[in-house]
Amino acid sequence: MTTRSAIQASGKQFRRKNISQTVQNIVISPIKEMSILADQLEDEIGHGKIISFGQGIPYFDTPSYIKDAIRTALGEIDTAKYTLEPGLTELRALLARHLESLHGITRIEEKKEIMVTAGCQEAVACALRSIIDQGDEVLLPSPCFASHIEQVIQFGGTPVFVPLAEQNKWSLDVEACAQLVTPKTKAILFSNPSNPTGAVFGHAELRALADLAKEKNLIIITDETYDFLTYDGMPHSSPASFADVSDRVILCGSFSKKYAMTGYRVGYAYADEGIIDHMLKVHDALTICAPAISQKAAIAALAGPRDSIQEFREKLAANREAMCGELDNLSDAFSYQKPNGAYYILAKIIHPALRDSFQTALRILNEAHVVVIPGAAFGPQGEGHLRFSFAGEPQQIPEGFRRLQNFLQTL
Amino acid sequence: MTTRSAIQASGKQFRRKNISQTVQNIVISPIKEMSILADQLEDEIGHGKIISFGQGIPYFDTPSYIKDAIRTALGEIDTAKYTLEPGLTELRALLARHLESLHGITRIEEKKEIMVTAGCQEAVACALRSIIDQGDEVLLPSPCFASHIEQVIQFGGTPVFVPLAEQNKWSLDVEACAQLVTPKTKAILFSNPSNPTGAVFGHAELRALADLAKEKNLIIITDETYDFLTYDGMPHSSPASFADVSDRVILCGSFSKKYAMTGYRVGYAYADEGIIDHMLKVHDALTICAPAISQKAAIAALAGPRDSIQEFREKLAANREAMCGELDNLSDAFSYQKPNGAYYILAKIIHPALRDSFQTALRILNEAHVVVIPGAAFGPQGEGHLRFSFAGEPQQIPEGFRRLQNFLQTL
Repeated sequence: MTTRSAIQASGKQFRRKNISQTVQNIVISPIKEMSILADQLEDEIGHGKIISFGQGIPYFDTPSYIKDAIRTALGEIDTAKYTLEPGLTELRALLARHLESLHGITRIEEKKEIMVTAGCQEAVACALRSIIDQGDEVLLPSPCFASHIEQVIQFGGTPVFVPLAEQNKWSLDVEACAQLVTPKTKAILFSNPSNPTGAVFGHAELRALADLAKEKNLIIITDETYDFLTYDGMPHSSPASFADVSDRVILCGSFSKKYAMTGYRVGYAYADEGIIDHMLKVHDALTICAPAISQKAAIAALAGPRDSIQEFREKLAANREAMCGELDNLSDAFSYQKPNGAYYILAKIIHPALRDSFQTALRILNEAHVVVIPGAAFGPQGEGHLRFSFAGEPQQIPEGFRRLQNFLQTL
Repeated sequence: MTTRSAIQASGKQFRRKNISQTVQNIVISPIKEMSILADQLEDEIGHGKIISFGQGIPYFDTPSYIKDAIRTALGEIDTAKYTLEPGLTELRALLARHLESLHGITRIEEKKEIMVTAGCQEAVACALRSIIDQGDEVLLPSPCFASHIEQVIQFGGTPVFVPLAEQNKWSLDVEACAQLVTPKTKAILFSNPSNPTGAVFGHAELRALADLAKEKNLIIITDETYDFLTYDGMPHSSPASFADVSDRVILCGSFSKKYAMTGYRVGYAYADEGIIDHMLKVHDALTICAPAISQKAAIAALAGPRDSIQEFREKLAANREAMCGELDNLSDAFSYQKPNGAYYILAKIIHPALRDSFQTALRILNEAHVVVIPGAAFGPQGEGHLRFSFAGEPQQIPEGFRRLQNFLQTL
């Protein structure tokens, strides 16, 4: 594979002596690398000088009813302590009821089929580690979430990229999946709504994928971080709603975006008891348990009024319109598919003077002081694109695009 | 290997279909398994009915100056958000100064040699993943911290147990290490002070180990969770203080025990920049970043008065005397080495009616309603022992031992 590292692309050399070959082959997700490079640049030019369309962090604060619950939790001594390794019992029960109502599932056994993790990222890590061995293959739609690539490789697996077509709005191509299945294929992993494309994989595609999984004995790992975030009334579907594949679907979820809690590192997994049994072993060896204070915040989030979710959705829908409008003004430099979900646009670079997505993103950082994510981070089909997050402050969108326009004029 | 699982020993069957062979070979650390089994038993007999000498959780609350800082942090919007992936810059700077003064290190570059993790457990996971490949060997003193075994196996490594001698107070045996080094040996991993034995590995042994590491090109991973917790003025030493091996020592540390923050999941690693570069890749793929609120609590912990550490040490020293006294009263059932550090006693079972440590721990849970940890969890030399934590409420010690005495009388 060519480099997937912005830091490598910027010239850094990595130590080899004593380092695992497996880990020499992974990278920090360029989503975070670009933040690290921006922080280094701000050490020189002053902090707060850079506008970020990079890491997907909602600009709003955690809702006050959740913060009130955290203040209450500080008066409880068990907040200081490890929780039970699978998570607080009350939180697992709330999650079970939540997923039952969201996906029309009859009965989830919260003490057997649910576990709480240090963010959705750890849930996916536990899922992959539990399913694959050295040399096993995992299907990843391309473009896919950058960290999914690194997670597969770090556990000894081989990512097999399923090319998605931009002209089909990056929709899930189950026939292409089927063609890439080999005896080594153990799982397919994707985010839906998709980070980085904003595509929403629909009921029919997921049903076809479930049939493929049954036929080929695959596990489906679905990262539903953005399950609440679709636009224009687009429905969100999950393979977890199909009873006939309940023994082969691992649903990984998050509180990060839905409740503006990215900093709290709390997520969860729902799967067959037989799979959760193993994922709990991995979870123990990675983080022992999710943070107690964050688990209590998550309890409040699920038990509370949740009006904030609709409010967040509306704010992000407004940002989507604003950013699409800005990109329309730069139509000689970028083309794009309007996202139906999540808060990213994977824009295609059509400006003739710009090529490689890493070099372009580094130039935009260093010359325009704007963070965007190189598309190559998201798999082969991502190359030639840049990912723009529209989760940031609304006023940053026009300012960031003013800088981009100035940058484009220098080319 | 024989089972290292209390849950398996209690009869549970595990799913094999679709499950990674690697993960079939690991277990939830019996430290947490015993808590899970206790929780299941309490569902029947009533919650709060069981006394735990199991998981090592200090009974005191997080100091109030740290909780005050958390309340302040709730007013800051960046607490809602991911931090920079390697951790908050201010926290890394404080950690650098802290480690410089603790270990007499001249100059730590906080932006290159320090990273913040979701607990020390994740720091060790990142370290191991960065150093070993499939089939590599890692030396573990036996007895060792149970999770270290599972961490090595889950990343494809092979634990090679270095037998320690109980009659030598479980001290580190560097000659035994040297004899077990093969061309596949990549690292040695241990906790110091030791969980589960309470042994404190001294300067001379660590110096000899550093020489061995240089000679054999090994990485030393030192888990210093209990660095503050030695008794009777016993000094704590770290291989991180030896300048000549600074490129091959990974120090993993924690806020969990020192500041009564086990629930907050915040720890750190200090190592050569070339190693941290790789560990950051693993960290990103596991948890993205440590919880922001916990990182701010950690800043307060390091910047604050820290009188609480001495107070904790004194309270735990009193608990140590109390538990040793109780064990002395049961000298026909147990013998033990008085610990010099940490808050565990690994007691040898000498009662003729008790044998296998898993069965004994399960009987004590089910019949006496007391949690102790089966010694086999800690490697081959742990078998025939039980680990008792004395970090719990002082009044639980006499009550727990009253129950144990009653249990022993039924044998």
